[in-house]
Amino acid sequence: MEKQLYSDFELYDIVTCGDQEELASLKEVTLQGWVRTNRDNGSIGFIEFNDGTYFKNVQLVYSKDSKDYEVLSSLGTGFAIEITGEFRLTPGNKQPFEVFVNECEIKGACDDDYPLQKKRHSFEFLREIAHLRPRANTFQAVYRVRSVLAFAVHEFFQERGFLYIHTPLITTNDGEGAGNVFDVIAHDSKSPEDFYGHRVNLTVTGQLHVEPFALAFRDVYTFGPTFRAERSNTVRHASEFWMIEPEMAFCDLNDNMDIIEECIKYCIDYVLESCPEEMKFFNSMIDNTLLERLNHVRNSQFKRMPYTEGIEILKKAVAEGVKFENPNIEWGMDLQSEHERYITEKVVKGPVFLTDYPKDIKAFYMRQNDDGKTVAACDLLVPAVGELVGGSQREERYDLLKAKMDSLGITEGLEWYLDTRRYGGCVHSGFGIGFDRLLMYVTGMQNIRDVQPYPRTSNTIKY
Amino acid sequence: MEKQLYSDFELYDIVTCGDQEELASLKEVTLQGWVRTNRDNGSIGFIEFNDGTYFKNVQLVYSKDSKDYEVLSSLGTGFAIEITGEFRLTPGNKQPFEVFVNECEIKGACDDDYPLQKKRHSFEFLREIAHLRPRANTFQAVYRVRSVLAFAVHEFFQERGFLYIHTPLITTNDGEGAGNVFDVIAHDSKSPEDFYGHRVNLTVTGQLHVEPFALAFRDVYTFGPTFRAERSNTVRHASEFWMIEPEMAFCDLNDNMDIIEECIKYCIDYVLESCPEEMKFFNSMIDNTLLERLNHVRNSQFKRMPYTEGIEILKKAVAEGVKFENPNIEWGMDLQSEHERYITEKVVKGPVFLTDYPKDIKAFYMRQNDDGKTVAACDLLVPAVGELVGGSQREERYDLLKAKMDSLGITEGLEWYLDTRRYGGCVHSGFGIGFDRLLMYVTGMQNIRDVQPYPRTSNTIKY
Repeated sequence: MEKQLYSDFELYDIVTCGDQEELASLKEVTLQGWVRTNRDNGSIGFIEFNDGTYFKNVQLVYSKDSKDYEVLSSLGTGFAIEITGEFRLTPGNKQPFEVFVNECEIKGACDDDYPLQKKRHSFEFLREIAHLRPRANTFQAVYRVRSVLAFAVHEFFQERGFLYIHTPLITTNDGEGAGNVFDVIAHDSKSPEDFYGHRVNLTVTGQLHVEPFALAFRDVYTFGPTFRAERSNTVRHASEFWMIEPEMAFCDLNDNMDIIEECIKYCIDYVLESCPEEMKFFNSMIDNTLLERLNHVRNSQFKRMPYTEGIEILKKAVAEGVKFENPNIEWGMDLQSEHERYITEKVVKGPVFLTDYPKDIKAFYMRQNDDGKTVAACDLLVPAVGELVGGSQREERYDLLKAKMDSLGITEGLEWYLDTRRYGGCVHSGFGIGFDRLLMYVTGMQNIRDVQPYPRTSNTIKY
Repeated sequence: MEKQLYSDFELYDIVTCGDQEELASLKEVTLQGWVRTNRDNGSIGFIEFNDGTYFKNVQLVYSKDSKDYEVLSSLGTGFAIEITGEFRLTPGNKQPFEVFVNECEIKGACDDDYPLQKKRHSFEFLREIAHLRPRANTFQAVYRVRSVLAFAVHEFFQERGFLYIHTPLITTNDGEGAGNVFDVIAHDSKSPEDFYGHRVNLTVTGQLHVEPFALAFRDVYTFGPTFRAERSNTVRHASEFWMIEPEMAFCDLNDNMDIIEECIKYCIDYVLESCPEEMKFFNSMIDNTLLERLNHVRNSQFKRMPYTEGIEILKKAVAEGVKFENPNIEWGMDLQSEHERYITEKVVKGPVFLTDYPKDIKAFYMRQNDDGKTVAACDLLVPAVGELVGGSQREERYDLLKAKMDSLGITEGLEWYLDTRRYGGCVHSGFGIGFDRLLMYVTGMQNIRDVQPYPRTSNTIKY
């Protein structure tokens, strides 16, 4: 008889959602995957088995009646195996089913020094074995949600007719010349300019490159890696991270905020629906306010509040005795995370867009408001995290944009960007979401090093 | 009355697929987009209008009866406008409908030196204005298909339970030490090692990083940028390009080829179905064998042929008088594009996997066959292009892999990769598709510079 190959996911899916006929067809099943644990009490043995397709393990049972008992009882943690056995429903037990194994073939042995033995390991320890931690429970959950969330982002934009644009990673544009870029030099080059005819660096944003596409296709987005040579060693900074940068023509700041709100809610819904086991795990093991928090955000209408009003609120809070590490609240300042969190957690008690920031603390491309002091920016602040999304309406007026760029000395090399304002450049807006931070927000994970497959932070690179 | 805002896509969609009720609701419509051309013959004027949401233009009509006649007749190519007018079906005309414009507001004027005037421009010229060419017909088609094809790739793998893994772009691993990498150095660094504590470069493949994920999740894929400091100035080489790299555990070379075949057919189907107008355009303007070729591939069963047999066929061809630029056919040689195309176009007359290549011309990680001379590799060759996909079963046997890596002097720094073979490393396989080349193949476009948003090739960088 030919072997009937199943995955963990398929078995759980049939047991949970399948019809009776499908369920009845599960008799002799073959599985391929890895041993999590194996305990043999002499007469009967139990293997926690997982093939990576589903968060829950499958329980394998064997005994001396099993044809390959010797092989089965010899299996250690980490072994790759193929088993064939009898599928059995086990109503009333912790697992809804088990497989009584008859045949077992070792597909890959595991040395005794395997670091992932059955015990809890610290995240710090697991970071040192980034090539093995995907097999640990937490990281099975993290990376599955990462994949699902990335697809949710694509679905959200594709369903709405947005075009996905691959903006370049190697560029002559170094953002605002802040210096925290990575230079790129062909290994066999004699000089930095040798390969491309120009000094080049890794991109810090795809926005400037994607704006011309919004002015051709109306609604577009990027979703790709960006880089900052950040030396700040925090739990939220990595030097390589993925960014989502949508850009929409004929879209003003209010439309922009509508789309941000819809996008965040869509992503939360999608993950809650697609990864219920993983989300339960995060809620019980990582952050037990997680599900409540996400459900609250999903059901909130996001407030909108001018920066200036935020400053007034913070001043009043200080006057009333609220303690901040930085208590010098002044109009014009860049808000610290503690200020943002106070506003979203204590005042609004939910998600809030802070809008119309002082022009001097925001990027050159943001549209100047009529007051001459502020720009049409919006930062989305959410409880427990602070800033989650940053966006703005772009300066579409050539003269104003050119004056700003000239004053910053960044016009040279960006003439093409300015040109888009001379050729049918219209009102347009966009935003940026740090994908890794969004993933931290959705999973409750506290360190960016634990949501990236191979984190890139300063002073540590092994892979 | 509030304005009823529509996109070009929505209007065409309602006219083509909508029900009568929906169609009847189209009375006064508002559109926002750009003027392609405007001709006013004194009594009546016609504007070819496009908002980037659909390949076909919308015809706007106006006359002296239009409220904003003066504005309308003044519009030049490239202007951004918002119009409101009466929707009219025009059965029998070239366009299925038109909009008789009453109101028109200029949302962004266009200077007289706008380079995209109504005439055909060469691809060479358009490459010089990469920020404006998305508005040209060909590039409207190219970038829409690019976006659709990228989403097709994600859907194909997500539907099949593959996890999307973001492998890092900055890495210490320089492939096989071939030297054609880009070094990455923090701009403010004193030495190349300063930032990460190691010399680092841009990745040439995500495969080594993704294999450990296949050994945890079974089926995974990457889809992201990769880099080669290629100085060869050809129509098929770029220094930055997107790669799709799936990796599957418990999957041998034959399973691998099954998935490649399914994936390529899925992508072709998806694009033909989602972008019929664009594909018709490519077939008529770029390559009039395109649709026939794609349909043939879609309906073919891909052949499988050992490299050794391919060599015999080529030798026989030379003996029979077939002319190759390189006629010295010998077992062990790397096939040139002319050889690959002869096999797929003249011999097989369809897609063919060439398998089991000599080990010395293939990568170190490919699994050695029992003959000791060949490895379990498969290259997919297709008519008109040659190689489209490269894949292999990976060497899962620790001793063989270590010996190979030692002999190449690449073990240091890749101990973690070797480790995966000691810890439940099982049979696994994977493949790589150059996304830009796949897009060239699906659209018939002949130059990689014309399918990337901002192409990166040596000696040219402006954006």
